[in-house]
Amino acid sequence: MRGFRRRAEVREVEGVLEDRVEPLASEAVATCNAGGRVLCQEVVASLDIPQFDRSAMDGYALRAEETFGASAYAPTDMRVVGSAFPAQPFAGLVGPGEAIRIMTGAPVPVHVDAVVKVEDTRPGPTDDVVQICGAVSPGKNISSRGEDIRAGTTVFEPERALRPQDVAVLTALGIQEVMVYRRPRVDILVTGVELLAAGSRPEGFRIVDANSPMLEQLVLRDGGTPIGHPIATDDLDAIMTALSSCTGDAILICGGSSVGQEDHVPAAVRALGELAFHGIAMRPSSPAGVGFFGARPVFLLPGNPVSCLCAYDFFAGPSIRSLGGRPRNWTYRTRDLPLVRKLTSEIGRVDYARVRVVNDRIEPLMVSGASILSSTTRADGVVIVSADSEGYDAGDTATVHLYD
Amino acid sequence: MRGFRRRAEVREVEGVLEDRVEPLASEAVATCNAGGRVLCQEVVASLDIPQFDRSAMDGYALRAEETFGASAYAPTDMRVVGSAFPAQPFAGLVGPGEAIRIMTGAPVPVHVDAVVKVEDTRPGPTDDVVQICGAVSPGKNISSRGEDIRAGTTVFEPERALRPQDVAVLTALGIQEVMVYRRPRVDILVTGVELLAAGSRPEGFRIVDANSPMLEQLVLRDGGTPIGHPIATDDLDAIMTALSSCTGDAILICGGSSVGQEDHVPAAVRALGELAFHGIAMRPSSPAGVGFFGARPVFLLPGNPVSCLCAYDFFAGPSIRSLGGRPRNWTYRTRDLPLVRKLTSEIGRVDYARVRVVNDRIEPLMVSGASILSSTTRADGVVIVSADSEGYDAGDTATVHLYD
Repeated sequence: MRGFRRRAEVREVEGVLEDRVEPLASEAVATCNAGGRVLCQEVVASLDIPQFDRSAMDGYALRAEETFGASAYAPTDMRVVGSAFPAQPFAGLVGPGEAIRIMTGAPVPVHVDAVVKVEDTRPGPTDDVVQICGAVSPGKNISSRGEDIRAGTTVFEPERALRPQDVAVLTALGIQEVMVYRRPRVDILVTGVELLAAGSRPEGFRIVDANSPMLEQLVLRDGGTPIGHPIATDDLDAIMTALSSCTGDAILICGGSSVGQEDHVPAAVRALGELAFHGIAMRPSSPAGVGFFGARPVFLLPGNPVSCLCAYDFFAGPSIRSLGGRPRNWTYRTRDLPLVRKLTSEIGRVDYARVRVVNDRIEPLMVSGASILSSTTRADGVVIVSADSEGYDAGDTATVHLYD
Repeated sequence: MRGFRRRAEVREVEGVLEDRVEPLASEAVATCNAGGRVLCQEVVASLDIPQFDRSAMDGYALRAEETFGASAYAPTDMRVVGSAFPAQPFAGLVGPGEAIRIMTGAPVPVHVDAVVKVEDTRPGPTDDVVQICGAVSPGKNISSRGEDIRAGTTVFEPERALRPQDVAVLTALGIQEVMVYRRPRVDILVTGVELLAAGSRPEGFRIVDANSPMLEQLVLRDGGTPIGHPIATDDLDAIMTALSSCTGDAILICGGSSVGQEDHVPAAVRALGELAFHGIAMRPSSPAGVGFFGARPVFLLPGNPVSCLCAYDFFAGPSIRSLGGRPRNWTYRTRDLPLVRKLTSEIGRVDYARVRVVNDRIEPLMVSGASILSSTTRADGVVIVSADSEGYDAGDTATVHLYD
């Protein structure tokens, strides 16, 4: 049992993770399942959308020039010679003085060049006549071929996280599958003889593992697939065995990361790979660490749930997003707001301060220790105090990262 | 084929949906699956967290008063009489002049009242002696019973969407399941003979149904479970049959909502229930409508994908969120930014204007028609121009709802 000799700076740890964590390989997914996934290819349209001139309105297709001068007071009569429906074009010819009924989405015949919308017409004296009550210019109410997307156009660049409407564009283009970054598989391994599996009732001096279900949700939030493991006991062999069983693209190991007699995780990581950092100048979660098994990052998260969340947010979350081709930056919504009270920190240390937002002002929560998990549920978010800052005075503006 | 006699105001439609769409019944879910779900119960802690006084540090547990006066220059020697580990309390008594090794999370024995962290100690001349290099006050580095959560406290109010850390709190409290609002099941029904099923290649005058996969993603985003249906043809019987087969808590029916000869959806909704609105003063998606089959809302979405997205965002999305116990308000991130160009609208009409954000300024996209689906993929978001506004001048500040 000994203290940390030196604590790494948060920025230094982040820098190494930025350098060493690369997006995973790609995989093909069906377009209908691609929502929210991140493209690793450029997508080029192979056809025009629309693929033919189509009506943008319900109305009458005709020659625009024949409507010139028409008004509600002096409508122009046109003979209605047929109808066009979606996927059922008008088969005949539209001659001078003639129009066809046309529905939204129906192909526009050749020889006509505009659609008068139904609201701008009146029924004529007989069924085969329509009165046009306003002039239209050529092209009016027609979606021309390629107007939306032209064949050969790049519709999406790589790194695009696909929105619902992006899936619609891909579907409309007849693109059946796309190449996306593989979802990172993330091992979640918790250590501690005092722990009962999530779902148990606490008993005696044993507490329930609350970190696994929290980490599972965080991994899902960041686009990963969590892989659960049984709780490992606090001995070097057990931890090495458990770590060796991890097959994911990243490993979260929670607990046993400090400098107590039972903290075998750093030694296990060192024995199986590389312990790049152990002890980080931050509060909470200074006993956090980062290692690598080859290219796979290993995150040593403190067992204390607040520290675990904090270390996850700083190091694991950005890396998991990055493995999946997403930007590393924090994903919480932010607001810049004034502080009602001062928020002190120490030069050289990064603070993850839980705060409430009340009447558009930031109230730091008074928290006695890092172990107060309920501080993260009472809080509306966190203010990060950087290593070069002593904190904020009352009235200063700070950026709050909102949990919801 | 006739025009709309009157278009309802967006606000009026929203008002009716607010009044008539109620959260669904509740269901029990296992806490480990409750992340992101919305509580419909208050959660009260039935036990203290921590359940016993526990060490917050690795170090030495002792009587605080015996450290008074200790410093690095004049350390106080204490005899180490044992150790406490998590879930393995020290079984003996700690007498005067004595301390025990204690690990983070270990129970603190009676008779001692503070923990000196290991960094503030030095090994003594023999193995059973530790030198205390600094004074601690009573209670120092001890998480006392109930300090985080006290039995009887309300930890969560109803309507809470559970965060990852909330799941941790519930788990720590040994709460195995919680009552949450049931996820709304949402039918997605698309009509149109011109449509090929999503996943097809467009051919001739037939286009691919791009709305179903988009709506599926939107429903998932809003906490619902989509229910797919085959594409219905454009005739009244087929649409009534398809609508009658819907079993969800809300129905999205897309296409056939306008006033053309093939637009049988309004009649079908009227025949099977109530058509509350048809024709809304907005652009795009003025042919949208809202109906009810008993308590179940039915959303008539235009077949044009941009209009479909717009009508979904205005009416269906808030209602689906509300069915699931979530706030109705739009969920896009917003930013208030100046416009580079003017953005005109009409008094009495709500506009859903696609815009880009370039150098922290809003650029309205020049879009020739509502049917330009790629406008929603090129856009960074939308600016809503309210019915009482004629739009914005260049330089005015507007709120952009960001798609990502």
